[in-house]
Amino acid sequence: MNHYKLILASASPRRKELLHQIGATFEILPSQAEESLTMQDPAQAVLELSRQKALEVAGRLPKPAGWVSSDGFAPIAPPPPPYDAAAPGSLPQNTIVLGADTLVAYAGKILGKPKDEEDAKAMLRMLSGNTHSVFTGVTLLVSAQDGESVHSFYEETKVTLYPLTERQIAAYVATGEPLDKAGSYGIQGRFAVHIQGIQGDYNNVVGLPVARIYQELVKSGIEIF
Amino acid sequence: MNHYKLILASASPRRKELLHQIGATFEILPSQAEESLTMQDPAQAVLELSRQKALEVAGRLPKPAGWVSSDGFAPIAPPPPPYDAAAPGSLPQNTIVLGADTLVAYAGKILGKPKDEEDAKAMLRMLSGNTHSVFTGVTLLVSAQDGESVHSFYEETKVTLYPLTERQIAAYVATGEPLDKAGSYGIQGRFAVHIQGIQGDYNNVVGLPVARIYQELVKSGIEIF
Repeated sequence: MNHYKLILASASPRRKELLHQIGATFEILPSQAEESLTMQDPAQAVLELSRQKALEVAGRLPKPAGWVSSDGFAPIAPPPPPYDAAAPGSLPQNTIVLGADTLVAYAGKILGKPKDEEDAKAMLRMLSGNTHSVFTGVTLLVSAQDGESVHSFYEETKVTLYPLTERQIAAYVATGEPLDKAGSYGIQGRFAVHIQGIQGDYNNVVGLPVARIYQELVKSGIEIF
Repeated sequence: MNHYKLILASASPRRKELLHQIGATFEILPSQAEESLTMQDPAQAVLELSRQKALEVAGRLPKPAGWVSSDGFAPIAPPPPPYDAAAPGSLPQNTIVLGADTLVAYAGKILGKPKDEEDAKAMLRMLSGNTHSVFTGVTLLVSAQDGESVHSFYEETKVTLYPLTERQIAAYVATGEPLDKAGSYGIQGRFAVHIQGIQGDYNNVVGLPVARIYQELVKSGIEIF
């Protein structure tokens, strides 16, 4: 069993905490990718955004001596866009780059982070008493001794909320919690009292489906934890 | 809105953490009740055990001046068993005592905490690749100005595990995590990588359905958070 270096391409404190929870050792190199969403379908959207993040970070990693990217860029920054996963040696060996993106979908709409408090209230009014979906897309760029591979997948979790009163919505938005969260709530904080139940993976709603990631890596013969 | 004093009748660090998470203020007075389970049905069992815990703690609370329990015991310890919820003034006013119990049920069997490592392994082998149920029963003894009431309810959450290898089971049991947990696993620790998904309330599996507790209290006109 080789030892792999895991790099989390995300600044999210919740993703970091989840990887710690399962005992993984990793480094954090937040993606600076400008997220450009061209997909309407939430599953396709999170796959695309997780790929953009992982590839942007992979492009900034130090390259093996003498390496030149497939499109002629210098080995260090700026990153070679697009990263060519098929080019051997374009990632340091025994490295895994993990990109992830989370979106909320309800009634055919994709909900990202709210623009401001009013936007957060409007989202929470919409989700109140209803069932919505949370999608997290994950891209794993794996550089093994025998080559490189890209694994992209997503998990969908359905979340049902109890009905929220205007007072409850105002009190929650006043905590400031919604502002950096897709769908305007965090399932792992005070908002827990408004969650009636879920169907699927809880950690996927928090922001990282660590179970699926672990299982996919085990299938590839990699145990990082 | 009256201010209520919440007393958690449990020494579980996970229940304490969940109440902290939702912003509740509370005191901890762990139950010393000898759990005596007479029910075969897991839902009835957790209801009964949560009641035993809440009542045992209520029996040890200081009583209002001049109070004599309905069965003639002195006001302080030993507790008056059985506690008589209908006796006015038997709890300090504006007090809520919260008792809870969690059990795992699979294939008609109730699984509590494992006796030892071998027992833990046997439980995990049984649950591997299957869907089981986690029941948490809750009893709230509420002493309001206009009288006392007892609310008992339970939540069931279905949990589906990925198949576990013998190596994964041995590695998990070696962490020591299973030993104080019903069903031999903790959903919120390293075991998260083996959880494929759930149906219902996640925190119910952790050990306390804080959403249901909050909603039940709100229905009674009590907002403790």
